Amino acid sequence: MRITDIIIKKREGENLTKEEINYFVNGYTQGKITDYQASALLMAICIKGMNEEETENLTFAIRDSGEIVDLSPIDGIKIDKHSTGGVGDKTTLIVAPLVAALGIKVAKMSGRGLGHTGGTVDKLESIPGFKTALTKEEFFAAVNSAGLAVSGQSGNLAPADKKLYALRDVTGTVDNHSLIVSSIMGKKLSSGADGIGLDVKVGSGSFNKNKAAAEKLSQAMVKIGKAAGKKTAALLTDMDAPLGKAIGNSLEVKEAIEVLNGGGDGALVAVCLELAALMLHLGGKGSVDACRDKAAKTLKEGSALQALINMVDAQGGDSSYITNPEKFAAAKYIHPILSDRDGYMTHCNAKEYGKAALILGAGRETKADEIDHSAGIVLEKRRGDKVNKGDVIAYLHTNREKAVEEAEKIILSSTHIEKEPPSAVPLIHGIVM
Amino acid sequence: MRITDIIIKKREGENLTKEEINYFVNGYTQGKITDYQASALLMAICIKGMNEEETENLTFAIRDSGEIVDLSPIDGIKIDKHSTGGVGDKTTLIVAPLVAALGIKVAKMSGRGLGHTGGTVDKLESIPGFKTALTKEEFFAAVNSAGLAVSGQSGNLAPADKKLYALRDVTGTVDNHSLIVSSIMGKKLSSGADGIGLDVKVGSGSFNKNKAAAEKLSQAMVKIGKAAGKKTAALLTDMDAPLGKAIGNSLEVKEAIEVLNGGGDGALVAVCLELAALMLHLGGKGSVDACRDKAAKTLKEGSALQALINMVDAQGGDSSYITNPEKFAAAKYIHPILSDRDGYMTHCNAKEYGKAALILGAGRETKADEIDHSAGIVLEKRRGDKVNKGDVIAYLHTNREKAVEEAEKIILSSTHIEKEPPSAVPLIHGIVM
Repeated sequence: MRITDIIIKKREGENLTKEEINYFVNGYTQGKITDYQASALLMAICIKGMNEEETENLTFAIRDSGEIVDLSPIDGIKIDKHSTGGVGDKTTLIVAPLVAALGIKVAKMSGRGLGHTGGTVDKLESIPGFKTALTKEEFFAAVNSAGLAVSGQSGNLAPADKKLYALRDVTGTVDNHSLIVSSIMGKKLSSGADGIGLDVKVGSGSFNKNKAAAEKLSQAMVKIGKAAGKKTAALLTDMDAPLGKAIGNSLEVKEAIEVLNGGGDGALVAVCLELAALMLHLGGKGSVDACRDKAAKTLKEGSALQALINMVDAQGGDSSYITNPEKFAAAKYIHPILSDRDGYMTHCNAKEYGKAALILGAGRETKADEIDHSAGIVLEKRRGDKVNKGDVIAYLHTNREKAVEEAEKIILSSTHIEKEPPSAVPLIHGIVM
Repeated sequence: MRITDIIIKKREGENLTKEEINYFVNGYTQGKITDYQASALLMAICIKGMNEEETENLTFAIRDSGEIVDLSPIDGIKIDKHSTGGVGDKTTLIVAPLVAALGIKVAKMSGRGLGHTGGTVDKLESIPGFKTALTKEEFFAAVNSAGLAVSGQSGNLAPADKKLYALRDVTGTVDNHSLIVSSIMGKKLSSGADGIGLDVKVGSGSFNKNKAAAEKLSQAMVKIGKAAGKKTAALLTDMDAPLGKAIGNSLEVKEAIEVLNGGGDGALVAVCLELAALMLHLGGKGSVDACRDKAAKTLKEGSALQALINMVDAQGGDSSYITNPEKFAAAKYIHPILSDRDGYMTHCNAKEYGKAALILGAGRETKADEIDHSAGIVLEKRRGDKVNKGDVIAYLHTNREKAVEEAEKIILSSTHIEKEPPSAVPLIHGIVM
């Protein structure tokens, strides 16, 4: 088999066999196939597409490119969660403890974020002492004792995905259904859980600009998850506006604690309850409706907050920050953005808010960048809210005084305040199971 | 400007601006744009195509990526020749002296061959002492004294083409109209001649499998040549069967000498006369018909042979090999291939004959390989010839005894001998000017 023949085959729009896909993925992972050959094939895939069978074979080849975690040392049913990524998406910090409090184990391996804000690992690292670099034994022990744990991706899981994703990012080949499906599912299927709850975002802050694209993606991922013997389901949730009030690492941890204390933003709570219900259902805890009720009850009773405290303790963090979130260090500059008019907030572009958060220090542009855990944005007004002239729309939190002006400009130009209130946008666009 | 935006633009089928094409070609030549980004863009170009304007801009960007040779130190009109490449194509060795004998200067910079047989430079190097690594001053002096010279590509001509071609070769992106046009013409336009005669091959031994593709290619190249202010025309010639009798470096030089002595294979002579007529016409020597007559007359008179001798002398070669071609060292093994049946030769696949020649030692598979100048094939029967059982079809010349069996197998399986004679195939498929 020769890689140029495989490239030419796809260039001509033909379907690749399982053997050809395996040859490519293994050869590329091992460095026998070069970056420039891989990028030519990725571009041919982007333009000519892959059918269902090819996409499934690509997914399994990525899964099989490295270690597949054996979670059997952890008792009980393990359900994983994956979000396609959004701005202000702190749902894992809420949903994982909530689900754990109801007896479903969550052994989550999570990456660091690249872009607007940190990933779940970065967010948790804003808790002093919290350790995400766990050995496999420490990780299993933490899940067994606390019911959940979040570990930075250790070991050699889906190395093909790491290489391919880095290449796609710089060669204009990110935006393709089959490549997205195989990247997400290849990685998730290597993490060893019994089931996977997918949170597929729709809207300006996600790569699914519309519901149809999100549905197609969800259906493909659920089908492949099931084909791999995993209970899999997807929730389509809104990411046109940022989720909740906070964008930024410790700011999001504090907001999550607020929700686990029974408070918090209504939209955020609603999305978290749906996700928890889906994961509990996948874990065999009853119908989605019954699971939603259980989750809501548990959230009120405070046992989910206790699960988060247990996890922080098990992972070496200072859990007094969870019980007293005012302990989190505040940024040096907290700058209010005021509305210059009366009206209704009709749109706040999640992607642009993410860009502003990045400028303030909440994210990293390159892997080498340091995250400022205290930086970010707290929204005081959200889509649909009535706004009076002079009202605070949002607060910018930063230690970079010079970033304030640029971030404010981005926020103002991506926030629309108009005379008429906007029509309602659903939070949940659907479920695929 | 960002290369990923340019890649995505072409991926989406949009046209690239002149500025975007220049940004890509210059950035890639300078190493600021990586191989993997270039190959993604090349694949997008292969699939989505480029329009005429883009192709022209790409050609000019390649031409302008390095030095443009100034041939003004050479007196008179300089006409260059380019062949898209074929098996047994020794026309330059005949046409260049013929044209020079009629007062048109030929200052040819030529590459080494990769594949079935050597390039013109390799063929000439089979003449002992012949030096192709000339300084610019030596090159100009040789053309001024002998009327023609062939130099290995020196200097920094169209470096973008060198990099792009090497990349295309290993990424399945060779076969695209715009990339082929811009590669050939970008390079030719940098070589500084007043006019360019193109020999565009058609048939199994070329990359133009049919006349329509060759015509499209010719029209585009001629148009771009004219747009760049050069007299340009193209001849479409047959490359379904090898051209002439010899395939291999010194074997082809000997065949060229035979033609310059007024003998040789009729088809080869006919193609050479057409090419010479085209170049003479471009050089202002009259109509194509009148030029053909002059060329035929000159060939008979022997002044073209003298021009070759002059060139060999000027470039340090031992011209006694030209006057006494039996001096060329023969290969150790000369193996006849016999026909196992009576009939007519209806087809001999040029590409496969080329493969066999490579195996015998006439070509190089990688740049590092050494060419065996004495190796190759001499055809005793050609397409259309009557063949009796036991007749010699061809002789294999090689110093690799073990290669004989494989080469013979390739020749036999790619040579068709049938009861009925084949219908005639034209040697010249057309002219584009």
